[in-house]
Amino acid sequence: MRIAFLGTGSMGIPMARNLLRAGHQVAAWNRTATRAEPLASDGATIARAPAEALEGVDIAVTMLADDAAVEAVVFGDGGIVEALPEGAAHMSMSTVSVAFAGRLAEAHAERGQAFVSAPVFGRPEAAEAARLKIVAAGSAEAVERCRPLFEALGERVFVVGEEPPAANVVKLCGNFLIASMIESLGEAFALARKSGIESADLLEVLNGTFFGTPIFGGYAKNIAEERFDPPGFRMKLGLKDVRLVLQAADAAGAPMPVASLLHDRLLAGTSRGRGELDWAALAALAAEDAGL
Amino acid sequence: MRIAFLGTGSMGIPMARNLLRAGHQVAAWNRTATRAEPLASDGATIARAPAEALEGVDIAVTMLADDAAVEAVVFGDGGIVEALPEGAAHMSMSTVSVAFAGRLAEAHAERGQAFVSAPVFGRPEAAEAARLKIVAAGSAEAVERCRPLFEALGERVFVVGEEPPAANVVKLCGNFLIASMIESLGEAFALARKSGIESADLLEVLNGTFFGTPIFGGYAKNIAEERFDPPGFRMKLGLKDVRLVLQAADAAGAPMPVASLLHDRLLAGTSRGRGELDWAALAALAAEDAGL
Amino acid sequence: MRIAFLGTGSMGIPMARNLLRAGHQVAAWNRTATRAEPLASDGATIARAPAEALEGVDIAVTMLADDAAVEAVVFGDGGIVEALPEGAAHMSMSTVSVAFAGRLAEAHAERGQAFVSAPVFGRPEAAEAARLKIVAAGSAEAVERCRPLFEALGERVFVVGEEPPAANVVKLCGNFLIASMIESLGEAFALARKSGIESADLLEVLNGTFFGTPIFGGYAKNIAEERFDPPGFRMKLGLKDVRLVLQAADAAGAPMPVASLLHDRLLAGTSRGRGELDWAALAALAAEDAGL
Amino acid sequence: MRIAFLGTGSMGIPMARNLLRAGHQVAAWNRTATRAEPLASDGATIARAPAEALEGVDIAVTMLADDAAVEAVVFGDGGIVEALPEGAAHMSMSTVSVAFAGRLAEAHAERGQAFVSAPVFGRPEAAEAARLKIVAAGSAEAVERCRPLFEALGERVFVVGEEPPAANVVKLCGNFLIASMIESLGEAFALARKSGIESADLLEVLNGTFFGTPIFGGYAKNIAEERFDPPGFRMKLGLKDVRLVLQAADAAGAPMPVASLLHDRLLAGTSRGRGELDWAALAALAAEDAGL
Repeated sequence: MRIAFLGTGSMGIPMARNLLRAGHQVAAWNRTATRAEPLASDGATIARAPAEALEGVDIAVTMLADDAAVEAVVFGDGGIVEALPEGAAHMSMSTVSVAFAGRLAEAHAERGQAFVSAPVFGRPEAAEAARLKIVAAGSAEAVERCRPLFEALGERVFVVGEEPPAANVVKLCGNFLIASMIESLGEAFALARKSGIESADLLEVLNGTFFGTPIFGGYAKNIAEERFDPPGFRMKLGLKDVRLVLQAADAAGAPMPVASLLHDRLLAGTSRGRGELDWAALAALAAEDAGL
Repeated sequence: MRIAFLGTGSMGIPMARNLLRAGHQVAAWNRTATRAEPLASDGATIARAPAEALEGVDIAVTMLADDAAVEAVVFGDGGIVEALPEGAAHMSMSTVSVAFAGRLAEAHAERGQAFVSAPVFGRPEAAEAARLKIVAAGSAEAVERCRPLFEALGERVFVVGEEPPAANVVKLCGNFLIASMIESLGEAFALARKSGIESADLLEVLNGTFFGTPIFGGYAKNIAEERFDPPGFRMKLGLKDVRLVLQAADAAGAPMPVASLLHDRLLAGTSRGRGELDWAALAALAAEDAGL
Repeated sequence: MRIAFLGTGSMGIPMARNLLRAGHQVAAWNRTATRAEPLASDGATIARAPAEALEGVDIAVTMLADDAAVEAVVFGDGGIVEALPEGAAHMSMSTVSVAFAGRLAEAHAERGQAFVSAPVFGRPEAAEAARLKIVAAGSAEAVERCRPLFEALGERVFVVGEEPPAANVVKLCGNFLIASMIESLGEAFALARKSGIESADLLEVLNGTFFGTPIFGGYAKNIAEERFDPPGFRMKLGLKDVRLVLQAADAAGAPMPVASLLHDRLLAGTSRGRGELDWAALAALAAEDAGL
Repeated sequence: MRIAFLGTGSMGIPMARNLLRAGHQVAAWNRTATRAEPLASDGATIARAPAEALEGVDIAVTMLADDAAVEAVVFGDGGIVEALPEGAAHMSMSTVSVAFAGRLAEAHAERGQAFVSAPVFGRPEAAEAARLKIVAAGSAEAVERCRPLFEALGERVFVVGEEPPAANVVKLCGNFLIASMIESLGEAFALARKSGIESADLLEVLNGTFFGTPIFGGYAKNIAEERFDPPGFRMKLGLKDVRLVLQAADAAGAPMPVASLLHDRLLAGTSRGRGELDWAALAALAAEDAGL
């Protein structure tokens, strides 16, 4: 296929290369033109403007820093909404906001242009190895059209519905969970260190017990299926344990804001009558607070 | 070895059985005596009081509900500190508080009694399959003495130092991370559902991207080694993404308190000059706030 | 003076009336025209469009719902930036965002138009009694020009600098403190009720001890002057008391998220070496986290 | 009356003096005896042990640092429960935990000893000026008996029920509200400073608008009476304003954890159907989360 690849930063370069390797024709463009040039030796055409890259393409891929950068390339003069050839599709792979993904979806729909939102999980090394995980959303027909690109770029694609912004929500949920794990790990290691424990010892335990095991996936499954009864571990016992965490943190002088938050949620869950359910019923509180 | 097993609840029963299977002699006691009786057919002696169970034992194991239950059995009339045979050891496997573990350690040390704190990860099914993960702390000599029990009860033992309360800190850190993941999952699924996404779709993505992969372990390693530079993903980009999460949550009407907390931490990290480090440097803030 | 009053909702109506009473000429406009009409009997001219209201005025006042409403009136066709007579000023009294106030300031500055941001504290009753408190920011000259309006509308005006967005920051700080007090009161009353205390009793104590006294003002002064030593009440004692609050809350089953947050802040303050300072040194943490 | 005054620290000294001035006989005791001695020149007897101070008294007052200090004096050898003369009362004025106040109440009740919990608001200066605010709880008869002391020590006494721990809950609620206001002020001043506003300007506005006015008392009244309709200021507008606060904070790089928490609460309140009520209905959420 003929592909315009707009945005050749540290992720875009290896992605564009993998498209070339897979036999696609690639016209590459980058705002700072010198960053696109290395792709010439891989067989890409280097375009001086988005409109030039878009000539005759089947699919325009955007892989840019943020909403503003994508906005300029999509809605600016000679941008994608204006210059995308009839029958071609736009696939947005940047991590943009959900609202902006919605705006892209609308703008393309108005013009009868196919649009797929397809943000990725993975770093430059994964991009290089064509091992990205891609979360895609868009009309079935549009998603199908992008499949050859998914195959060239990633090791797996997850299609999460026909509304493009859904892909961005899912991608953000993923990053949120990583950030949350980082913060919680930071608090746990601070507590351990202040309690005289070697970080390496805590690390070994965590690696040997949770990480790489199906435990988090098991909880996620129960939450997804809203299955909190019979309990594997009762919320009131979870509350007891988090109470012990906070006591230890207080004694060690190690503030643990996530633990404090968990305490209040588990206490609310218990006061609201869920103490005998599995502690994954915390998810039911989150759902209620969202008006679900 | 001759073992007193004090506390035969849903965890204690299968654990005591595995000790019997491994060829140990077990005298079992439970406050509600009828709950210990089933072990008789497995070959255990049923004791009517802790002191009776403790006669002539090598190791006394406690597996009770909480601090108060262990306190009664250890410090009460005819309790462990009083009735433990000379040269025998006490191994506390309950999830008790760090402070109470410290009190146990002191009381045993004063009397020259060996003491190991050895809480476990795993549910009754894991106890039954002898697949518990055991976190142990105590003097090298005392831990060594308990090894045959670890082998009979679990699939792995992690020794985290010579101070018994360290094992409880580590156990609580583990439960804290599970609770944190549950709450974060709850918030993520609430956001996804309010955004019109099928829970099953989000679940599939999470299972296919993070859970069961080394990603969390990788972050834990960097945090344990305080290695935040060069960045894999810059804190300022993490801040950007969490900002997008909160925008989506606000628009969907789905409160995400963990995401709010993450935003404030990432903003503080950035304002305090760490925006160019890896976002795992959140852990450095937690350490600083703990006075490390 | 001749005044265009744009936005005659529940606040705008009594404000416009007070301007008329003070002898000013008022041309009133509202998007839903019927809502402006009652002012006709008070002597106002009713305009059918912003541009009509703006003809020949000295000052254009906007008192609209939000950023979007002000944006339409200021930047739309025949809007203020376009139709404000030369030498006239725009005074924005709505609670708009700080960023949008900045955008207004810039747009007016580019065209050499005077601009004052002047949001108000007070409800319709206060507007009617001409007892609003007005927070104003803008060039000294522009603020001076608006003084006759301040006198007609409010009982007091606070000038907080020459940069218009400053007034919006201060207004938002005020609303933030009210919201914070509401949430904290909510948590305190929930704790009291669950502890069997009559709400009326707690109310009487609060009214008789803090509310209406200079105590909060005293803390605000020390924070403004960064004076935390000698301590009036040591942070470590504050930490002790908040710990007692959380214990009581936990026992009562009343989650208190603000108290949890306070605990973590006081613990961080203490671990970071400020335990002997006045507990108002919490403000020093907030400043540090902001990179100050 | 004859009074034993146990604990003559920075609060106790001026309080004991005021009792002497009012004509009472005072036997003073302090763990570090030299701290009680200055009272000799005011006419107090200095006791070498609590039991000595308690001889022949009508009321024993404790004004000590914390639970542990009161515990030693009440339950220790020759302590109050043991040595209080028949018919005499114990009045605990320290800020102790609610649970410990309950334990004191029980211990005295078992022995038929009158007990009043009466913590105070006010610093040493207020103690000196006999302007403390006293929160008292206990049987009507016991409280009545202590009245002459209230009159000598404070400017006002609030009786909050017959259960002694109630006084401690109310006292802690008060300190919680001060701490909460301090933290919120800290966040507000950090935001203002990072936004280029003079702290003195913000201070002047706050003093001129809220502090010293009945506004907080008004909200407290509505919360106490659960009156949220008709709204003075709608929750959904409050949510809008807190959103603006967070936007400003994010742009300024000033983390505001209380504001983040408020956002999530207001969002939950709105998603749970209370957007059209007064924003004081946040208190209804807190009550619900407490299972009320």
